[in-house]
Amino acid sequence: MTHKIAILGASGYTGAELVRLIATHPQLEIAALTGERKAGMTMAQVFPFLRHLDLPALTRIDEVDFSGIDLAFCALPHATSQAVIGALPPSLRVVDLSADFRLRDVAAYEKWYGKPHAAPDLQAQAVYGLTEFYRDDIRAARLVAGTGCNAAAGQYALRPLIAEGVIDLDRIILDLKCGVSGAGRSLRETLLHAELSEGTNAYAVGGTHRHLGEFDQEFSALAGRPVQVQFTPHLVPMNRGILATAWVDGDGARIHAVLQARYCAESFLHLLPFGTVPSTHDVRGSNFVHIGVAGDRVPGRAMVVVALDNLCKGSSGQAVQNANLMLGIEETTGLMGAPVFP
Amino acid sequence: MTHKIAILGASGYTGAELVRLIATHPQLEIAALTGERKAGMTMAQVFPFLRHLDLPALTRIDEVDFSGIDLAFCALPHATSQAVIGALPPSLRVVDLSADFRLRDVAAYEKWYGKPHAAPDLQAQAVYGLTEFYRDDIRAARLVAGTGCNAAAGQYALRPLIAEGVIDLDRIILDLKCGVSGAGRSLRETLLHAELSEGTNAYAVGGTHRHLGEFDQEFSALAGRPVQVQFTPHLVPMNRGILATAWVDGDGARIHAVLQARYCAESFLHLLPFGTVPSTHDVRGSNFVHIGVAGDRVPGRAMVVVALDNLCKGSSGQAVQNANLMLGIEETTGLMGAPVFP
Amino acid sequence: MTHKIAILGASGYTGAELVRLIATHPQLEIAALTGERKAGMTMAQVFPFLRHLDLPALTRIDEVDFSGIDLAFCALPHATSQAVIGALPPSLRVVDLSADFRLRDVAAYEKWYGKPHAAPDLQAQAVYGLTEFYRDDIRAARLVAGTGCNAAAGQYALRPLIAEGVIDLDRIILDLKCGVSGAGRSLRETLLHAELSEGTNAYAVGGTHRHLGEFDQEFSALAGRPVQVQFTPHLVPMNRGILATAWVDGDGARIHAVLQARYCAESFLHLLPFGTVPSTHDVRGSNFVHIGVAGDRVPGRAMVVVALDNLCKGSSGQAVQNANLMLGIEETTGLMGAPVFP
Amino acid sequence: MTHKIAILGASGYTGAELVRLIATHPQLEIAALTGERKAGMTMAQVFPFLRHLDLPALTRIDEVDFSGIDLAFCALPHATSQAVIGALPPSLRVVDLSADFRLRDVAAYEKWYGKPHAAPDLQAQAVYGLTEFYRDDIRAARLVAGTGCNAAAGQYALRPLIAEGVIDLDRIILDLKCGVSGAGRSLRETLLHAELSEGTNAYAVGGTHRHLGEFDQEFSALAGRPVQVQFTPHLVPMNRGILATAWVDGDGARIHAVLQARYCAESFLHLLPFGTVPSTHDVRGSNFVHIGVAGDRVPGRAMVVVALDNLCKGSSGQAVQNANLMLGIEETTGLMGAPVFP
Repeated sequence: MTHKIAILGASGYTGAELVRLIATHPQLEIAALTGERKAGMTMAQVFPFLRHLDLPALTRIDEVDFSGIDLAFCALPHATSQAVIGALPPSLRVVDLSADFRLRDVAAYEKWYGKPHAAPDLQAQAVYGLTEFYRDDIRAARLVAGTGCNAAAGQYALRPLIAEGVIDLDRIILDLKCGVSGAGRSLRETLLHAELSEGTNAYAVGGTHRHLGEFDQEFSALAGRPVQVQFTPHLVPMNRGILATAWVDGDGARIHAVLQARYCAESFLHLLPFGTVPSTHDVRGSNFVHIGVAGDRVPGRAMVVVALDNLCKGSSGQAVQNANLMLGIEETTGLMGAPVFP
Repeated sequence: MTHKIAILGASGYTGAELVRLIATHPQLEIAALTGERKAGMTMAQVFPFLRHLDLPALTRIDEVDFSGIDLAFCALPHATSQAVIGALPPSLRVVDLSADFRLRDVAAYEKWYGKPHAAPDLQAQAVYGLTEFYRDDIRAARLVAGTGCNAAAGQYALRPLIAEGVIDLDRIILDLKCGVSGAGRSLRETLLHAELSEGTNAYAVGGTHRHLGEFDQEFSALAGRPVQVQFTPHLVPMNRGILATAWVDGDGARIHAVLQARYCAESFLHLLPFGTVPSTHDVRGSNFVHIGVAGDRVPGRAMVVVALDNLCKGSSGQAVQNANLMLGIEETTGLMGAPVFP
Repeated sequence: MTHKIAILGASGYTGAELVRLIATHPQLEIAALTGERKAGMTMAQVFPFLRHLDLPALTRIDEVDFSGIDLAFCALPHATSQAVIGALPPSLRVVDLSADFRLRDVAAYEKWYGKPHAAPDLQAQAVYGLTEFYRDDIRAARLVAGTGCNAAAGQYALRPLIAEGVIDLDRIILDLKCGVSGAGRSLRETLLHAELSEGTNAYAVGGTHRHLGEFDQEFSALAGRPVQVQFTPHLVPMNRGILATAWVDGDGARIHAVLQARYCAESFLHLLPFGTVPSTHDVRGSNFVHIGVAGDRVPGRAMVVVALDNLCKGSSGQAVQNANLMLGIEETTGLMGAPVFP
Repeated sequence: MTHKIAILGASGYTGAELVRLIATHPQLEIAALTGERKAGMTMAQVFPFLRHLDLPALTRIDEVDFSGIDLAFCALPHATSQAVIGALPPSLRVVDLSADFRLRDVAAYEKWYGKPHAAPDLQAQAVYGLTEFYRDDIRAARLVAGTGCNAAAGQYALRPLIAEGVIDLDRIILDLKCGVSGAGRSLRETLLHAELSEGTNAYAVGGTHRHLGEFDQEFSALAGRPVQVQFTPHLVPMNRGILATAWVDGDGARIHAVLQARYCAESFLHLLPFGTVPSTHDVRGSNFVHIGVAGDRVPGRAMVVVALDNLCKGSSGQAVQNANLMLGIEETTGLMGAPVFP
């Protein structure tokens, strides 16, 4: 059985990644694509790499007939989704890829995003979209809020460790190395090839990155008390990929065992042998996550390293995985494509 | 119906690309993988990006039981294939990705490869593997010789133009821009990131590149008289992709029309509107070819630009496409994955 | 003796490159830096890589006191220079890095740049800035018009060959591979790291690139009759560098000999042994030009390959070289820094 | 006054970087260059980017006449230097760029390098080459041991903080992002462009990197008690540059003040305003170090970020700086070249 879907905001990178994934998904069919500023254009004009596909042209959202559509992916800019989703038919299932519904507490939303939440009623219905940890809720949800890509990477490293109490909750450092597509198709000098290639730098220092709101929410809930991690991302000259290095206090072997127990049945989460660490090269373009654990010569210290593709598993791949659950499709459908290497 | 295949030489880039493609191919199943120097290792050890797959371990070729295998991909180094394929069961279909059987004339082989051909009898059976131009022969073949990746790119630009006589046969220049994976997993200083990134250079200048042997063979046969193109490749800091710029004498609009007529029914070959030229960014990781034509302010001159992924359409994707034909599978099966962008 | 200079338009890449070069120039001192939109900012704010230097802050041009300044470099956007230079003190020597004064024929300017020339009187005084070919004129000039970076690369390949009549004037193809800094600090999607790295494409196809105006002017003057080359640039994922592949009809050995005779006394132009071709890696960050010549298996055909750094020798380094001549400083002063490799 | 120098091991990256720097150094003259395996070749053959220089050809070390040479740079592989330097004339000043003389305790050398020290007597004379902290000793030294590039980056972040006691000595994490030239001109699959570009990974995990020997030696001496930092490097797709992110327990403002006081008089060390962090883009190709400090939302935690060029300030630039001191030349001579950006 095929389900018809719409992609709202198809002219950005996550929208294009949704099209890429759904193009070979045997049970999803793209019925509508929107792009407010590029309405009237074909996808081949906006993204020539999709030229081989027979796709509907871009329209404005208000031009879409949602009557035959089973699910909408909403890949709109932050703050736009709250308004748009509120105006969609109440029966339409929605997977939102923005930050608009990630934080259950609207006060936390206002703190991290600097403006009041525009749709608190919808927020109350939203399920947090980290699939492996909210699977049952996602199956039953009308609205799923996709996670931040950095937030996904950090949680794959840490959630089982916090839940099992095997690391010091006040000593968690997340040093992330991030590919540039996480910034979207933004025209900024720092994202130009000339200024980004061949070098690296930290950004959002001092505990200011918005994905900290997700870490606080999720880790505190798991621990049953407030947990505040330290997290700084670094911009690395690669287009896709996040490498999350989690520096923790805990026993490396025990950490490895906890992750092994929790992830061994997961299709997309692969734990490497103890002492081996992953590379973003090995997950590029895929929905897979590689996780490694190493100890340290300093007793009681360890490192968990997570590699994922921010556009796929960190965003659009996660969204398809969640849509599969919501539509009663086998969870891995359309997502088993191997990474592209080299 | 599923066909069992073997990949001989699975520890190089084209071998790994075969595994990547076949992993999601619904009618092919990997029954054996060989790697002489890495026999005994798992593919996850040799290529961690394939970790999620349940694959046979690497063995030596002489350990393979070919009795239940329907087709072998041979991704061995040049000159090795001639010996190996000669020792395979005569009933086993073979797609060879090396240069060993590309040149019908064994004297031409000796000229370009510097040694006598070791299997002239096999050569007589081999079909040249440029799918869109040898489709019927490939369907019936026991042994298909995959083309050179540069040779494929150049031929997609030029074959219909030579066949239709719309360009000057003595005025063909192929200026290619090539990604580094075309050199294979070779340990050479010029292929190190430190020496290759952030710069470009020509190589194999003076009409010395071995793929000229294929151009000579194919273009002369098409023209019915000797044709010698000028061809120089340039190494560009990208991992995948060939951009072939063909400088020709002819009328741009007529050239475009000839290519349109020839390619409009092809699933993988996409001609852009006249005056628009392709980018290797838009075919990366895929079996698609984008082709553009532009005129020039100098009357009677034109340019055909072809973009393809050397590892996929230029090598392993082409091999799977040919295997599909040989095994009676729908030609595009397993090959419709969209390019990865960005 | 030290000369005081001003850099008008110091907030772009060529302006920054001028500062980089002049910072260690023993006879030039930076007295003023301008940037209309960034007036009031320090150079360390605009370009942190210049943080170690003690530089004047950016001002508006109308705030500069030109009375003690010996020479102004004008690194303003195209079309702006014509107005700005006209308003400068008539005694002030000027090296212009824009396209505004490159074309002696104002009709040609209007054809290629799409608007009437705003300062035809100044144009009459301007000397074309390809140092090695206009050295005496440059010494005596008040206004020197820096060449286009592609135009420089192509001319180093071809001028002596046209002057000596050793190539067919109607059979000249320039296939250029260009680094992205040539596009300046422009905010365009195609210049983003995510869209430019790991791929290549042609642009300005069909004989439309503006630097053709310079080729036409210079080559026709040399030949004494109209010469129209074919020229298409390709964008390559590197920040600096132009590799110009000139495909010509002529005898390779004779071409090499002509270039050898013409360039053997030049400090910055280095001809490689016949059959050896250059790499942009080997000139990056420097004022040096490497030039190679190869024959072809097709008799009477040859290739000249030129590598230079577009920001340095193709623009700001050329400007300093010209300023040295205009100010009576030894020509190579401040420009002998070795390339940066790797 | 000009001093004659020799570079032993000129065919690697640090050797080439020495030549690059010394080529424009007004008081150093290259009298001999050695390369055992490339003896007889010119530097232009080994490194075409040095083609414009008039340099002695490569010889074997035993062919060098050291009688007129004032100082030798020894850029040989680890473990080779101990033998070679022992055989040099005792009066010859030596700057060694290898790891052979960095560890004062020969037992520590054996622990980290896996073999007994071959020249303990020479070790006793060696001065550790971190210029800004061993300036007086270096002036008087006969043998200076250049630091590890990672060791330099980490020490610039931490030494003043340890010396002043403003951070917790048992809570120091160094998460480094390293360019690939730090691995030298080594032929390894992981260093190929195809496998390194467009991705990142940790390596030498678990507290196993040899530069920990230097951290232990230096930090313990400063603190007056054993200090063991945690340190893991990450390979980033850039050719030059180290970004050291030091995660520490301490007050950000106080840390900034301590670094400001210690570094304000240093020519090459530049502290950014509090809350601003550096980029390796801004020091590439130069001897400058940019240092930034940020606090954290978690009270009492801070981050120090250091950017330097591993080949220049982390190795060959440091070596020239030390040679200047040893020869009585002004310390910054030949080293004030601005970084290359973009």
